[in-house]
Amino acid sequence: MKVSIERAGASAKKKKGLIIVNTGNGKGKTTAALGVALRACGYGMKVSMLQFFKGKWKYGELRSAPKLGSFEIRAMGHGFTWESKDIEIDKRMVREAWQEAKAEILSAKYDLVILDEINYALHYGFLPVEDVVDFLKNKPPMLHVILTGRNAKPEIIEVADMVTEMREIKHPFNEGIVAQKGIEF
Amino acid sequence: MKVSIERAGASAKKKKGLIIVNTGNGKGKTTAALGVALRACGYGMKVSMLQFFKGKWKYGELRSAPKLGSFEIRAMGHGFTWESKDIEIDKRMVREAWQEAKAEILSAKYDLVILDEINYALHYGFLPVEDVVDFLKNKPPMLHVILTGRNAKPEIIEVADMVTEMREIKHPFNEGIVAQKGIEF
Repeated sequence: MKVSIERAGASAKKKKGLIIVNTGNGKGKTTAALGVALRACGYGMKVSMLQFFKGKWKYGELRSAPKLGSFEIRAMGHGFTWESKDIEIDKRMVREAWQEAKAEILSAKYDLVILDEINYALHYGFLPVEDVVDFLKNKPPMLHVILTGRNAKPEIIEVADMVTEMREIKHPFNEGIVAQKGIEF
Repeated sequence: MKVSIERAGASAKKKKGLIIVNTGNGKGKTTAALGVALRACGYGMKVSMLQFFKGKWKYGELRSAPKLGSFEIRAMGHGFTWESKDIEIDKRMVREAWQEAKAEILSAKYDLVILDEINYALHYGFLPVEDVVDFLKNKPPMLHVILTGRNAKPEIIEVADMVTEMREIKHPFNEGIVAQKGIEF
């Protein structure tokens, strides 16, 4: 019986756009998304990366992305930097960013959309998780979406096809070494 | 006393080339290294990625890498694919690959060298871990090295500055979905 169930599962294998989550307290959540973008561009796929937080801009990737021909990186939120004193303004900015992200996803211009640090916005309650989950459930079927950031919500993990936790095992800041341009920022 | 030790540590913060390890059973070990390469190239840094196993070649990254201007990807081991029936031939090929990798590291042509899947070779005893550890301890001081692959040896974690474990939380192969070109290969 077990065998026949497994066979039925195998015959039902299908192609679809994946919902991928990179979470955890370690390095590599955003860089793994950048690596997928690099790989996807090699196949001529069109990629959009939306950075929810201005503080996350890395000039290295902003300079490299245009060279790949079909990779656009854009900072959302009109300069939101976690520096505002007014949480209501912060929330409004993140929600505007999410409106822009939804338009991007629905534009049919891309094969892969990366929502960088959106988990952060969800974790802090700046976006209602049910809105994001509903939207992902109804995304264009072949579009791949990557969501990055610490503390991915259980609802996001539930709707995702592939979830990886990047766990910090060792970090040089704990050992008296400064951050390195090009490697960490 | 504790405070003064911490202060001494802080004042000793220094720049150095990092030894970075991406390990674990999840996705993102190689793609995070590719993402660091993309970022580093944006700063004009020179990057070499040596793929220890031919089966790991991803055409997406091979096509994108040259566009970044200072990123070279090369497969090592003269076509080693885990398919040989003779483990001694396999071992010799991996060891030749390691000789090539050492020459690359010492060439002073690169700011970042990625040893893709070297942990795999070490885990299976195809390379003596003490040789790799000794070599890394004596690498050019400003050179960054990234080692990827499952089952990183404790000796490699010990010599590393930054270690991230990519843990699989959820994988679509378990749910009847085929691998997706451009995303997973």
